[in-house]
Amino acid sequence: MGSVLRVRAIRIDEWGGPEVLRLVEDAPEPSPGPDEVLIRVARAGVNFADTHQTRNAYVAKSALPFVPGAEVAGTVAAAGHGFAAGERVVALTRSGGGYAEVAAVPAAYCVRVPDGVSDAAALALLLQGLTAWHVLVTAGRLAEGETVVVVSGAGGVGSLAVQLARGMGAGLILATASSEDKRALVRGLGADVALDTGSDGLGDALREAAPGGVDVALEMAGGRVFDACFEALAPLGRLVVYGISSREQNEVRTGRLLKHSRSLIGLWLHHLLPEARHVGPPLEDLFARLDRGQLRVVEGETYPLSDARRAHEDLAGRRTSGKLLLDPSL
Amino acid sequence: MGSVLRVRAIRIDEWGGPEVLRLVEDAPEPSPGPDEVLIRVARAGVNFADTHQTRNAYVAKSALPFVPGAEVAGTVAAAGHGFAAGERVVALTRSGGGYAEVAAVPAAYCVRVPDGVSDAAALALLLQGLTAWHVLVTAGRLAEGETVVVVSGAGGVGSLAVQLARGMGAGLILATASSEDKRALVRGLGADVALDTGSDGLGDALREAAPGGVDVALEMAGGRVFDACFEALAPLGRLVVYGISSREQNEVRTGRLLKHSRSLIGLWLHHLLPEARHVGPPLEDLFARLDRGQLRVVEGETYPLSDARRAHEDLAGRRTSGKLLLDPSL
Repeated sequence: MGSVLRVRAIRIDEWGGPEVLRLVEDAPEPSPGPDEVLIRVARAGVNFADTHQTRNAYVAKSALPFVPGAEVAGTVAAAGHGFAAGERVVALTRSGGGYAEVAAVPAAYCVRVPDGVSDAAALALLLQGLTAWHVLVTAGRLAEGETVVVVSGAGGVGSLAVQLARGMGAGLILATASSEDKRALVRGLGADVALDTGSDGLGDALREAAPGGVDVALEMAGGRVFDACFEALAPLGRLVVYGISSREQNEVRTGRLLKHSRSLIGLWLHHLLPEARHVGPPLEDLFARLDRGQLRVVEGETYPLSDARRAHEDLAGRRTSGKLLLDPSL
Repeated sequence: MGSVLRVRAIRIDEWGGPEVLRLVEDAPEPSPGPDEVLIRVARAGVNFADTHQTRNAYVAKSALPFVPGAEVAGTVAAAGHGFAAGERVVALTRSGGGYAEVAAVPAAYCVRVPDGVSDAAALALLLQGLTAWHVLVTAGRLAEGETVVVVSGAGGVGSLAVQLARGMGAGLILATASSEDKRALVRGLGADVALDTGSDGLGDALREAAPGGVDVALEMAGGRVFDACFEALAPLGRLVVYGISSREQNEVRTGRLLKHSRSLIGLWLHHLLPEARHVGPPLEDLFARLDRGQLRVVEGETYPLSDARRAHEDLAGRRTSGKLLLDPSL
């Protein structure tokens, strides 16, 4: 046994804002558990949820000292669990650890990245891609030819959902967006009709655009946007609630569900992730679609690991667009 | 062309109670449309909804003169649509016509009956069997090993749902029933635990019986039974609302669905029936299960066609049990 290897990592020793993100040069290299794989991290994904974790204000609580980071792209450090050393992979971490040169991740959350897919693109598809895939497929059960509404079609998840719906054979795709620029974007991604979320007439606009009713609605706004989507559902239609960004919850009476055979499906991705079949196969499908040009992702800035603090500040200040990454070698 | 053939049928010439059900000996034999099959009726099923139809108080409205009857068992009168003359079939009618010696039914709603299955059993599995199958499979998406709650497990649909859940590999099956006799019945049908619907402690009883939570709840009572089932749902659990017998609707907030990844699924069978794939394959599955002893049905009284009025009076007076039938030859 040699001495413990040391790696660069961002470590939090006390909870707080971006200022608690400190680079340490001599963190102990994590030792993988029996169901884990060790990854040499090429890029770590930065997520909005990470900014809650520095304050320990995320749904899942953490203990100090804490290395943040929910997702990494890199290469397998040592063969095992069906992976060869040096294979390019992307992985979800179990509870942080991604902001580092080396991370131990559950083998079940570790997926090979095809040659044609960059680390940045693979990370852009990881949490947001899985969310878009599962709200559309697992929760929404989209069938060919069906009519779909994607709320916030220009957003991180929405922009992927619009493209996936197109690629999966949806009939009519409606998307909402808050500005003319964003509506042009969602039309470019494959939406047939782009609707103004801000308008009071969203319900009328949905009825006019989809007179036969909506089969699948992907909703994360709440309030009157939810109401408009719910009213627009066809018999056997499904409304997937995967967020409530307005913080306005809605109430639905069971008689309305029964009379029109409607479904209301709540989905928080974390309930699906514990099952490996909900991670690997959907990601492989996403990579294949990216590879054949059916999906495009918006890549954002790559920060040196030592600038993790600035990445969080920019994210919290809403100054960024696209997927943010950290480069642990810098 | 010969003269029009005449058949015996129950005909309604004015809307009203059971007294408007009149036997006529010389009704014109129905002529099948291009997508229909002519059936020589051996038995016609009597449903509670038929008692609403005599008053034209059913959801779907009818025109006079009207021959009631939503389902028949019998033999194919003339080859066509893939059926040979004389084949034993069971069928849903499009909008009545079943209370007669001969009925024209959509070929898509016409399903072969295996030799080992009686007309009475086939009819007992038609509407109630399809309902039980679809609430469990299509709406509830039961997976092997999952925990199921069947509300009113001794009822027409519930008793079939308990048996289907067992046959389809459910893990734990809980059923509610309002009396000790009925609770003994549902245990006999395969329920692991029978719970008292009338008790205020249904929620506690569910939590105690299924500490890991409920994956699929089949609910048709509403009010506090609904509340108890909803609270008992595991993450990713699905509550299927296919009736509200107490007439007490419930309201659900979207945040509750999101936080626990719960689904609320309304299902009214009539929205599924227009698609042939929702009729034939499920019925064939039900017949196969009956044939291999995995399902048993409760057969009720068979009335002569001329006694249709008494059948409706008995049904409205809640004096019957099991599936009621009419014999058009009597």
